[in-house]
Amino acid sequence: MDLGTVIGLVLILVLLVASMAMGVGIGPYIDIPSVLIVVGGSIGALMVSFKPAQMKSFVKIFMIAIKPPQEDRMELIKKLVGFATKARKDGILALESEVNNEPNAFLKKGLSMAIDGNEPDSIRELLEIEMEQTSTRHKGNAAIFSQWSGLAGAMGMIGTLIGLVAMLMNMADPSAIGPSMAVALLTTMYGAMIGNIFGGPIANILGIRNDDEALVKEMIITGIMSIQSGDAPRALEAKLLSYLAPNERVSQFN
Amino acid sequence: MDLGTVIGLVLILVLLVASMAMGVGIGPYIDIPSVLIVVGGSIGALMVSFKPAQMKSFVKIFMIAIKPPQEDRMELIKKLVGFATKARKDGILALESEVNNEPNAFLKKGLSMAIDGNEPDSIRELLEIEMEQTSTRHKGNAAIFSQWSGLAGAMGMIGTLIGLVAMLMNMADPSAIGPSMAVALLTTMYGAMIGNIFGGPIANILGIRNDDEALVKEMIITGIMSIQSGDAPRALEAKLLSYLAPNERVSQFN
Amino acid sequence: MDLGTVIGLVLILVLLVASMAMGVGIGPYIDIPSVLIVVGGSIGALMVSFKPAQMKSFVKIFMIAIKPPQEDRMELIKKLVGFATKARKDGILALESEVNNEPNAFLKKGLSMAIDGNEPDSIRELLEIEMEQTSTRHKGNAAIFSQWSGLAGAMGMIGTLIGLVAMLMNMADPSAIGPSMAVALLTTMYGAMIGNIFGGPIANILGIRNDDEALVKEMIITGIMSIQSGDAPRALEAKLLSYLAPNERVSQFN
Amino acid sequence: MDLGTVIGLVLILVLLVASMAMGVGIGPYIDIPSVLIVVGGSIGALMVSFKPAQMKSFVKIFMIAIKPPQEDRMELIKKLVGFATKARKDGILALESEVNNEPNAFLKKGLSMAIDGNEPDSIRELLEIEMEQTSTRHKGNAAIFSQWSGLAGAMGMIGTLIGLVAMLMNMADPSAIGPSMAVALLTTMYGAMIGNIFGGPIANILGIRNDDEALVKEMIITGIMSIQSGDAPRALEAKLLSYLAPNERVSQFN
Amino acid sequence: MDLGTVIGLVLILVLLVASMAMGVGIGPYIDIPSVLIVVGGSIGALMVSFKPAQMKSFVKIFMIAIKPPQEDRMELIKKLVGFATKARKDGILALESEVNNEPNAFLKKGLSMAIDGNEPDSIRELLEIEMEQTSTRHKGNAAIFSQWSGLAGAMGMIGTLIGLVAMLMNMADPSAIGPSMAVALLTTMYGAMIGNIFGGPIANILGIRNDDEALVKEMIITGIMSIQSGDAPRALEAKLLSYLAPNERVSQFN
Repeated sequence: MDLGTVIGLVLILVLLVASMAMGVGIGPYIDIPSVLIVVGGSIGALMVSFKPAQMKSFVKIFMIAIKPPQEDRMELIKKLVGFATKARKDGILALESEVNNEPNAFLKKGLSMAIDGNEPDSIRELLEIEMEQTSTRHKGNAAIFSQWSGLAGAMGMIGTLIGLVAMLMNMADPSAIGPSMAVALLTTMYGAMIGNIFGGPIANILGIRNDDEALVKEMIITGIMSIQSGDAPRALEAKLLSYLAPNERVSQFN
Repeated sequence: MDLGTVIGLVLILVLLVASMAMGVGIGPYIDIPSVLIVVGGSIGALMVSFKPAQMKSFVKIFMIAIKPPQEDRMELIKKLVGFATKARKDGILALESEVNNEPNAFLKKGLSMAIDGNEPDSIRELLEIEMEQTSTRHKGNAAIFSQWSGLAGAMGMIGTLIGLVAMLMNMADPSAIGPSMAVALLTTMYGAMIGNIFGGPIANILGIRNDDEALVKEMIITGIMSIQSGDAPRALEAKLLSYLAPNERVSQFN
Repeated sequence: MDLGTVIGLVLILVLLVASMAMGVGIGPYIDIPSVLIVVGGSIGALMVSFKPAQMKSFVKIFMIAIKPPQEDRMELIKKLVGFATKARKDGILALESEVNNEPNAFLKKGLSMAIDGNEPDSIRELLEIEMEQTSTRHKGNAAIFSQWSGLAGAMGMIGTLIGLVAMLMNMADPSAIGPSMAVALLTTMYGAMIGNIFGGPIANILGIRNDDEALVKEMIITGIMSIQSGDAPRALEAKLLSYLAPNERVSQFN
Repeated sequence: MDLGTVIGLVLILVLLVASMAMGVGIGPYIDIPSVLIVVGGSIGALMVSFKPAQMKSFVKIFMIAIKPPQEDRMELIKKLVGFATKARKDGILALESEVNNEPNAFLKKGLSMAIDGNEPDSIRELLEIEMEQTSTRHKGNAAIFSQWSGLAGAMGMIGTLIGLVAMLMNMADPSAIGPSMAVALLTTMYGAMIGNIFGGPIANILGIRNDDEALVKEMIITGIMSIQSGDAPRALEAKLLSYLAPNERVSQFN
Repeated sequence: MDLGTVIGLVLILVLLVASMAMGVGIGPYIDIPSVLIVVGGSIGALMVSFKPAQMKSFVKIFMIAIKPPQEDRMELIKKLVGFATKARKDGILALESEVNNEPNAFLKKGLSMAIDGNEPDSIRELLEIEMEQTSTRHKGNAAIFSQWSGLAGAMGMIGTLIGLVAMLMNMADPSAIGPSMAVALLTTMYGAMIGNIFGGPIANILGIRNDDEALVKEMIITGIMSIQSGDAPRALEAKLLSYLAPNERVSQFN
């Protein structure tokens, strides 16, 4: 569980509810038809914008934002350097048992290919195709949330226009104008909330998660290439450490 | 038929009509001159923005959004691996009969060239030109819908300004101000609807469809290059599978 | 004459005039000082934004949008394939008379260089420099229209603010408020019209025209390279046809 | 002096002053505190956004927009072709005296390196570093004006909000509401004027000036490479002419 | 301490406070719940948008904007040229003592690798990975401030909508409408202030700082490659000076 995302969402919710309660109470801010037109309408527009297969993984994608499958990069470097040390001493075939127990599917696939004696160029090509395709798919999924942001805002505006027209057509009772306009504004408010609390921020964190994952895959490709060409483990570690922030770098050789 | 797009459009329509009906009824929201200025005006502006040939295929492009010519990627991989197996055993000339029955024009063209003994580099160059040109044309067509989104919004605003000026010039009867302003707002509402229900979402799904098609073509080029150079069918399958999402990958060799 | 652009402009004009006439008539929508501030002001801002040489060709650029110098691509392919056939049979020097009568300056220049015996690499380099520089100049010119779009909108807003301030300063006579505000809104309306009927759409079609021209030049470069290296006319035609849409392709060898 | 920019600024100024004078006169549009908050506030925000060294050259950068240091391209081509002719006849060392009198620092530096016998690759690398770094610095400077555009608009909005709040807090005297609101709107008007008359257009012309300068440098690099490798002057001229627009090209060999 | 940033912030603060004080005084512009919803809400949305590790360095990143760790580029060039001179005379191993006292970690790392006899290609690769990764991390951090700009504006709008709805629901007392609306507008004002005084400008200066740092690293890589390949110190200086603006260049050889 990534606490930042959850704490952020709770913080906004508390502030919004408190500021509503301090005025006229929560009641006037809740209007089911307005919720339906903004949420339902924007999800309808998302269904037009994306493939059904992408929409089906909507919740799964949201969960990645709040509970990412993180890879400990220092652990990964240690593991790759360990593999390099073993391969240098006993040959690359000695890694067969480690590969079978490897949980990271990407590393497992690459190492298996290296052990099977594939050419370095074809291993790199295959792994890079996989890395790029995965990243493209993830970006396409994150785009659902950034599109949601814009579409919710637009449905909010459409809802407010529908409400305003109804109000203007019906101005016989002046005392009803204020509340009618208040209700008309609710859809704009809902749209802005969905867009700026869910849509935009979730799309942003999904982009960061995807970059993190791509970086780990790049480190794995670098590692496998080094192991196969029999580089010194110390040199491999130095190269992998330069992917990290300076304060994260801990060498196991010192 | 791609259900997502259709269900999405129906869902939005139902929600909008229901929210109008709950207020003052559908009637006040329909104003033919306003529809004409927004729809006609934005299509006029599209005719200035694009070539007649592009505008003519407006409906055809829209149909691609809701009914895409999809290629089953697993079937394609199976077929390419089958071709590779046969070409390896009996030589590439043995593929002649398969090529003649091949429905995919892009694959057919590439394979014919390989059988005719063209150089791999010139086959790749020709197929890549075709892939890029097709993709450029498709993006140009999808741009009609994204431009429509902006132009409909602008024509809606212009319509509202025309209505507001008429209303402000004629404020003798205070009871007419409300309804006049309501009518003036209708063009903005129509513009927002066209832009955010048709324009934007359709442009987005067309972009996704185009990326899908380009990916299939990339897989075909990879496949033909492998078949011509006599790669092992197993290696070709591994490479092609890395274009798919992990949960879609099914090897025919296991 | 490209009918699409002209029909589009006429259609919008008719719709706008009709919608004005149906309300308070055309008269109230015409205000010469407002026209001056939006048109004059935005052209002034364009003169700050671009070089005098670019502004001078303003009308010439506009004419390209409505009356483009189109090259028939099938004719071009036939001509290039004809050249390739002749060059293969009688040597490249045999093309001298064709070159002298060639109307397309770009093709003429490239072929002359080939006949004069220049290196393929230096011909390609020179033609590509010319192609890129032309495209860059054209994009710079098209940018005048997209900038106009934004600047006209801004001058419209400035004009409305000037009018609003005058109105607010002078609210003694309530019956004058409506008409004053109407006049103030006119500049915003003019700005939106210029931006969304002329500015944006013209910039868009100019971009498409430029891409079309660049594509033709790319085909010519491909053709000249093939003629010089003595490729088979059939292979050259296949390569050139892949630049076209599938339904446009007609081979002269079948 | 580049007349376009100056004429443009004068034209806008005249139109704005005239349109103000025709209404309530110039007086009501001038409010020193509003000018201070928009101009001072946006320059303050620019000081946060850029380095002091960049802000110091604010006026110098503005002068480049209205009085650019232009290089006559035809003269440059003649000069480079002249150098090539001389170098071919008498050897590259014969250019020493020309180099000493060369006013263009970039050309002087490159030619000196060529005469000193540096490797073509290292001359090209050094000149390209200088060209790119200069262009990056210029773009960073032009960004001051495009940022100013946005920040002036934002400070205008903040000023209007400050004024509106003051007005709304103090609605006892209805006759004061109009003028108070007029004053509140002035900051938005100033912001829009700065952004769309100075900020945006100046940033645009600076970008064009920078592209022009980079193009001249590219021509110089091409020229020096040709002179050093002893290309025929005629071939060099043909290559350099393809950087110009067709109607600007005048060969000295015809 | 970079004075520009601090002076800019103080200047804006003084102008804003003065313009408030001149109207209704500072008091009415301060509303704690409004501050909470804009500042708290936007920081909550930032916590959803970024990883906790990035948010933790929020203050540290802000300090880089106002107090950057600047490298004197002329000093760096002198140092690198000095190293090159020594390495050319006494061999690269003679630089060992200088390296140990080198404060710049990036230069130290690269030189150590060169002294240890690593291949130039692998030194360059490792240093470029580190340079790119650092730059990517910095851009990700600067993005916090540009996102803050948008999210603060959005939370301001949401706050104003909440206030407007409360006001419209409760219009019994007409004299309260003005002040209620004034309070509702405060959140929009706070949002615009945060976005355009902190968010945007800080993000901009962080981008400039990052480009400066990357440029210094590029110069260091160029220097180390030259030292290792034994280039002439004069040639190295000429290359490094071309990274600077012409008026900054001072050669130590003249």
